[in-house]
Amino acid sequence: MQRNILKRLLSSPCPRLQRYKSVSLTCEQYPNLKRGDFAQLEDSDVQTFTSILGPGNVLTLADDVEGYNTDWLRTVRGQTRCVLKPKDTEQISEILSFCNKRRIAVCPQGGNTGLVGGSVPVFDEVVLSTSQMNKILNIDLDSSTVVAQSGVVLEALDTELSQHGLMVPIDLGAKGSCHIGGNVATNAGGLRLLRYGSLHGSVLGIEAVMANGQVLDCLNTLKKDNTGYDLKQLFIGSEGTLGVITKVALALPPRPKSINLAYLSLKSFADVATVFRRSRADLGEILSSCEFIDKECMKCVTENLNLSNPLGHSEFYMLIETSGSNPTHDEEKLNIFLENMLAEEIVSDGTVATAPSKQREIWQLRERIAESLLVDGYCYKYDISLPLSVFYQAVLDMRQRVGGKATRCVGYGHIGDGNLHLNVTTPRYSQEVMDLIEPFLYEWTSKYRGSISAEHGLGFKKRNFIGFSKSAAAVMLMKKIKQEMDPNGILNPYKVLPDL
Amino acid sequence: MQRNILKRLLSSPCPRLQRYKSVSLTCEQYPNLKRGDFAQLEDSDVQTFTSILGPGNVLTLADDVEGYNTDWLRTVRGQTRCVLKPKDTEQISEILSFCNKRRIAVCPQGGNTGLVGGSVPVFDEVVLSTSQMNKILNIDLDSSTVVAQSGVVLEALDTELSQHGLMVPIDLGAKGSCHIGGNVATNAGGLRLLRYGSLHGSVLGIEAVMANGQVLDCLNTLKKDNTGYDLKQLFIGSEGTLGVITKVALALPPRPKSINLAYLSLKSFADVATVFRRSRADLGEILSSCEFIDKECMKCVTENLNLSNPLGHSEFYMLIETSGSNPTHDEEKLNIFLENMLAEEIVSDGTVATAPSKQREIWQLRERIAESLLVDGYCYKYDISLPLSVFYQAVLDMRQRVGGKATRCVGYGHIGDGNLHLNVTTPRYSQEVMDLIEPFLYEWTSKYRGSISAEHGLGFKKRNFIGFSKSAAAVMLMKKIKQEMDPNGILNPYKVLPDL
Repeated sequence: MQRNILKRLLSSPCPRLQRYKSVSLTCEQYPNLKRGDFAQLEDSDVQTFTSILGPGNVLTLADDVEGYNTDWLRTVRGQTRCVLKPKDTEQISEILSFCNKRRIAVCPQGGNTGLVGGSVPVFDEVVLSTSQMNKILNIDLDSSTVVAQSGVVLEALDTELSQHGLMVPIDLGAKGSCHIGGNVATNAGGLRLLRYGSLHGSVLGIEAVMANGQVLDCLNTLKKDNTGYDLKQLFIGSEGTLGVITKVALALPPRPKSINLAYLSLKSFADVATVFRRSRADLGEILSSCEFIDKECMKCVTENLNLSNPLGHSEFYMLIETSGSNPTHDEEKLNIFLENMLAEEIVSDGTVATAPSKQREIWQLRERIAESLLVDGYCYKYDISLPLSVFYQAVLDMRQRVGGKATRCVGYGHIGDGNLHLNVTTPRYSQEVMDLIEPFLYEWTSKYRGSISAEHGLGFKKRNFIGFSKSAAAVMLMKKIKQEMDPNGILNPYKVLPDL
Repeated sequence: MQRNILKRLLSSPCPRLQRYKSVSLTCEQYPNLKRGDFAQLEDSDVQTFTSILGPGNVLTLADDVEGYNTDWLRTVRGQTRCVLKPKDTEQISEILSFCNKRRIAVCPQGGNTGLVGGSVPVFDEVVLSTSQMNKILNIDLDSSTVVAQSGVVLEALDTELSQHGLMVPIDLGAKGSCHIGGNVATNAGGLRLLRYGSLHGSVLGIEAVMANGQVLDCLNTLKKDNTGYDLKQLFIGSEGTLGVITKVALALPPRPKSINLAYLSLKSFADVATVFRRSRADLGEILSSCEFIDKECMKCVTENLNLSNPLGHSEFYMLIETSGSNPTHDEEKLNIFLENMLAEEIVSDGTVATAPSKQREIWQLRERIAESLLVDGYCYKYDISLPLSVFYQAVLDMRQRVGGKATRCVGYGHIGDGNLHLNVTTPRYSQEVMDLIEPFLYEWTSKYRGSISAEHGLGFKKRNFIGFSKSAAAVMLMKKIKQEMDPNGILNPYKVLPDL
């Protein structure tokens, strides 16, 4: 049976893939890109996979694999014919050991919410999905830690932890789909990094399967462990190119007893920067998020998704969230801060939400921006770190540069972390607009020693621009590490490291 | 001239080294330890060093090099005849390039306050001291970051930052001597990790010189940068075996406007654990330190250093520190918490210090414990992570095991991080006592999946016990990385990785 399915796949392209054709780029559209020297998938391989995983966990029907081939943004499309859905570490170990010997390329995939084409195949890499690796294994209330399989959905994990007065230290718009293993593999940042720090600090342990199938147990749940090199750090942000993360252990902050959300409108970006600086000083330890949205961006999210904006038209908007242990204290701190900001005319208008439902409503204006941009057609997505002094100038310069050729050019993001999301949209992919943006924006960012990918990673789309943020010596060392850990290069090829 | 100095050194042992003889172990006392296949230092090498650094920065006189050969605990003693004191990255690059070609072994040394023999030579490795790499290069108030050379003393850095309302996110007893580069190289933990997280989270960038002299510039000052593997993480905690850290960039928390210190006495360890759990829940975001000291330990620090203890005799003591942005709120939170603890008879007695001078006095009881233990003679020093449920049992079991053969067996440390400092003292080094402790304590720790070195690192003394906390596969990968980054093994040999 498997043999027939594979034959059919090879002979006829899937009609439903056409749906995305206008916006997705396949490997053929990258003229200099060549398929690596990997084995072609044979029927006997599919049989081996099936013998390891059981028949229901090896997908080869065109309709079944379609969703695994296309990224969430619908900007890139792979050509896999086979998706594997293991349930545990041992199965992943067996699969990788086999693929390594056969030189079959593998694309690990979590919730497939990545924004740089890192989680979908480029050619015909077998997709290794963590969607069935979805067990929470242990919650330790004494040490405030959790151990979970890598495929647990972020929101599901957080909901479970909320029962115990704990929380996951990251949160992002894709929380309903993204997997915790994918978050760790991509070093996801998100909305509360300024309070809870990066995953390099809060991931305590990782279990990963190496390219050759060997299980690497760094599944520590200790806050402190200085016994040798901290190998788990290598996997955080390596986007599945050094190993497949199978379990993670996280340090968990206490769930705040009180959360307040201030939603503000402001006249200028200078005011936005001032509010950030002052909130950091005045709200101190209770500040848990500091986000901004520009006017063009607010227009996009409200119009394209039909959401309502409780404040009137303004040049800029901010969301300032506080999280603390004492509602009275928190409210007092926030009120004093906001009164000062209004009295000094730094903030034009504002509202404070204390009810969770009202907070969720406001957060939608921020969290659903990515979705709203897709409604325009094709989204050129950039995620850069910049010094505050030139932060918004990047948007102004880019807007002028693309001019009328783009539907819009917007700026929003995590000002509290110096992280700007700069997005340009057009009805469909335009090489002309792309050429206006790249490498211009990378050069711009590099000039100020910014990062050309603050939190999204390099994946497929940005790997060849790594030189704008990393030195040649650093890239060379990365390549050596990759070569050492995955000598056949089977793990997520064409990702992270540059082609040359 | 250099030639004569070297000759004299080779022919006559330094008389002042005798002073430590009773307590320091030299390489001859480790029967299975063999000098690596490194070049012997020749006069021409010293001349080359002098030509790179200038004559005043190459020490070869026995009296001058003595302090660099002996660790702070006076438990190990190296035999270097040459100490180099470079001023900048370029000089270190030149030195390492030369040493790598000549296969001269190098021991990087910061403030030499390490507790596992990692910062002193074992045989005749050349010491590369960062003591003149002491410039603070940039403080950025917008992004709250600092860039400094690696030899800046931790306390000096913090004092400078205090002028700007900022602070270094680590603090430890050795702050007056330890270097920030050494802190990073050893992934120092210290007194406030539970609040500000580990250096894996707060180090934003590192510049390091590789074994072959190549400068690796990962000197990012951005909060977020996901462009390729996070190479700087490899250097954090690698104890100078993968490269010499020359500059570091740190993310800085705002300096708290209000600090309170509660000093408590308690009847049992169960009460200590309860106070920790409750402080985490009730003090939440303002809790900045949670330390404990047992009775035996308090006796040692008060008697050996003639310090006074403001509370009466008790089985256990705790220091609970809060740091926040609003003195009234902080005091209110702490008072409610302490009233509850006293009312519920979990705490026997307590005092709260708000004046900095009074706080310093109390902190001395904690910070000077290591020093007080040395007064006894030889200190067998252990630094382990354990689950709270078995945390103090380790001390009780060990105390029973060493019995009257030890001067004392004490427990103290960072209960907030699950980090126990377990120390045994004797008048002089006793192999019998050592054999009672090791490998017993490592086996004990391993049974509970603890770490045999929570924050001190492995250095020279604990490298061969790495297997109690790390899997064979993990150690193998560490060795591969070492081999890749330092093929001649010149950087801090006999450290971190096991002999076999």
